[in-house]
Amino acid sequence: MPLIVQKYGGSSVANAERIKNVARRIAQAKDKGNQVVVVVSAMGDSTDELIKLAYQVSQHPSDRELDVLLSTGEMVSSTLLAMALHGMGYNAISLSGAQAGIQTDTAYSQARIRQVESKRVVKELEKGNIVIVAGFQGITEAMDITTLGRGGSDTTAVALAASLGAEVCQIYTDVDGVYSADPRLVPEAYQLTEIGCEEMLEMASYGAKVVHPRAVELGELFNIPILVASSFTDSPGTLIHGGVSMEVRNKVRSIAYNLDVAKVTVVGVPDRPGIAAAIFQPLAAAGISVDTIVQNASINNITDLTFTVTKDQLNRAMQVAEPIARSIGARECTSDSRLGEVSIIGTGIKSTPGYAARMFGALSEQGINIQLITTSDIRITCIINEAQVKDAVRILHRVFEPEAKK
Amino acid sequence: MPLIVQKYGGSSVANAERIKNVARRIAQAKDKGNQVVVVVSAMGDSTDELIKLAYQVSQHPSDRELDVLLSTGEMVSSTLLAMALHGMGYNAISLSGAQAGIQTDTAYSQARIRQVESKRVVKELEKGNIVIVAGFQGITEAMDITTLGRGGSDTTAVALAASLGAEVCQIYTDVDGVYSADPRLVPEAYQLTEIGCEEMLEMASYGAKVVHPRAVELGELFNIPILVASSFTDSPGTLIHGGVSMEVRNKVRSIAYNLDVAKVTVVGVPDRPGIAAAIFQPLAAAGISVDTIVQNASINNITDLTFTVTKDQLNRAMQVAEPIARSIGARECTSDSRLGEVSIIGTGIKSTPGYAARMFGALSEQGINIQLITTSDIRITCIINEAQVKDAVRILHRVFEPEAKK
Repeated sequence: MPLIVQKYGGSSVANAERIKNVARRIAQAKDKGNQVVVVVSAMGDSTDELIKLAYQVSQHPSDRELDVLLSTGEMVSSTLLAMALHGMGYNAISLSGAQAGIQTDTAYSQARIRQVESKRVVKELEKGNIVIVAGFQGITEAMDITTLGRGGSDTTAVALAASLGAEVCQIYTDVDGVYSADPRLVPEAYQLTEIGCEEMLEMASYGAKVVHPRAVELGELFNIPILVASSFTDSPGTLIHGGVSMEVRNKVRSIAYNLDVAKVTVVGVPDRPGIAAAIFQPLAAAGISVDTIVQNASINNITDLTFTVTKDQLNRAMQVAEPIARSIGARECTSDSRLGEVSIIGTGIKSTPGYAARMFGALSEQGINIQLITTSDIRITCIINEAQVKDAVRILHRVFEPEAKK
Repeated sequence: MPLIVQKYGGSSVANAERIKNVARRIAQAKDKGNQVVVVVSAMGDSTDELIKLAYQVSQHPSDRELDVLLSTGEMVSSTLLAMALHGMGYNAISLSGAQAGIQTDTAYSQARIRQVESKRVVKELEKGNIVIVAGFQGITEAMDITTLGRGGSDTTAVALAASLGAEVCQIYTDVDGVYSADPRLVPEAYQLTEIGCEEMLEMASYGAKVVHPRAVELGELFNIPILVASSFTDSPGTLIHGGVSMEVRNKVRSIAYNLDVAKVTVVGVPDRPGIAAAIFQPLAAAGISVDTIVQNASINNITDLTFTVTKDQLNRAMQVAEPIARSIGARECTSDSRLGEVSIIGTGIKSTPGYAARMFGALSEQGINIQLITTSDIRITCIINEAQVKDAVRILHRVFEPEAKK
């Protein structure tokens, strides 16, 4: 009997009606002759409410206690979902992360899954049960409850799918699937039927937050196809997998953007070994996550060094960078907080000549000035003025659409 | 270092303010040089809200799933309490029932504790932690979560106290302690400093719902003194223990009452062997809990048989009893749903002549008709008209008060 893993996000189980709706979808999957394992997030904003409670009793709640507290949210939704299935005449059982064998390290609030000991899940499947697993949580060797941090429930689902050898991991959320661009910006954007794991990873990091990169990476590693679809409609969704057919490679698949970009430039840096380390080690020590780094060609042993951070980290980044700039003899530190980025994504576009030129040309035709450029094997990103990002997305979608359609 | 177990009920931790208040009381106990284990109930009416949710998704939620769902309530309050203690600079850790080693049978929703494997609790105490245990819950051998049913958190606390060899189990609730009578009925009722376990058991069953009889029985069995006190005041509370000093024995300690009494009388029963079994076995099979049973002296081999049930079970009791009465040749079945009972309680009062006579005399002087009488070693109970119960309590408190004071 084929085995599938389904994951339903918080908005899909936000209230009793929606839980019953999800139960009907699960029942359909069961009726089709599948063994079904379901991973579920906490109801709606119940996690936020638990966090609020924690901060009412303590200004700095401990990570360990916060993890136990938050883990209850998924226990609630998983039991309710099992009850709803019982009410429809289906055999179902809820399991906590601990019971489902989601074994993690001890990094509370952002634990990593070490292994999945799926004996109990298998036993319940063999009894004919639909198994509902509380997402986002696991247990340490010392039997302490952990949570997996961002993307935790997606990761639980893919990890279970890998451990159980599932045919597919279906991630149901409040969007239809993966689009060629944000449909709120680009009305003619269309849903992709399939997309490669690498392309999806670039998109997720660059603003298309449909399924968490951790889960996509895990799916790639264990060769588990991930279907992303809406729990509210019957849209077919988008299949994320490693085996995207040859003919759609070497194409622009998607236009992504990100409005949360700020830039720091250290101007007039003496170009000698050790300078980059002198700047970036203190930034890392201060917990500032640096995204893009660009160093201009050195002229007379003087260079400019630019890096980007999220907007909320700009002030701290400047506080760290300014004294360093002085100490290494740089001329000054400048910053710009009104930036954004726009990317074209597609396997192999970098190795194919012409994409970069077409992208830059399309932007310049619209009078959009490119401040920084970065590239990966499957992505070209331009950092531009924040106010021009949305126009840029629309323009690039128009320019590259013809060859992206699939 | 002396070890104490404290238990706080749901109203004591109903919101963030109250949780912080409870944390301060726990801190005081710690500051006095104790090792402290705390058992906590779910916040306020959060359990009711979870039950409501369950019935929104299913008309008949399964006991297993309901237990997992309800167990989250105590996990939430226990973590919040640990966080509040951290905020005050104390080392504390929350443990679920499973982590605290509360091992139960598999009777979901009313599981019994089989044993307490307190290794983890001991380890955390040795690290200097205040240990906060989620009450009302345990775990089966198969690692399934159970709840303990009524009085579950009280029972968790006493079981932990017994397992850890605690000096005392302190049960904090929203009442000051055990009174000589319900102070809402009898303004001159006073709080008892101490009371015997047996007396307390009689009182608990007869309406003084301060601490659950299961917990008192366990305390008696393992010789754990139980202090009942308020979490909102500094009243000294009442100590329930086996070693009540000799001088307070042989006294009426308390007047208890119960307004939830209904009566069924099978009239004109042929008095032959097997008749009682013929009536009470089907009642038990129908899940009807019979309280008092009285059979009048037989005249001409014809007798009347009366039993009492709670009011909500009267209809079902009559439905079961009537066909049986016909089949055994009884004349008829009558019922009365407007009854109550009043009791005097005190170790040894039954073996001391005169108490019964004084009780009956005091009631009759006020024109209160006694319908049924039952006694135990330490209790005399009269079943009377519901409307006269409160007067009866006041009268009996006045009559017996002088010798009850301690």
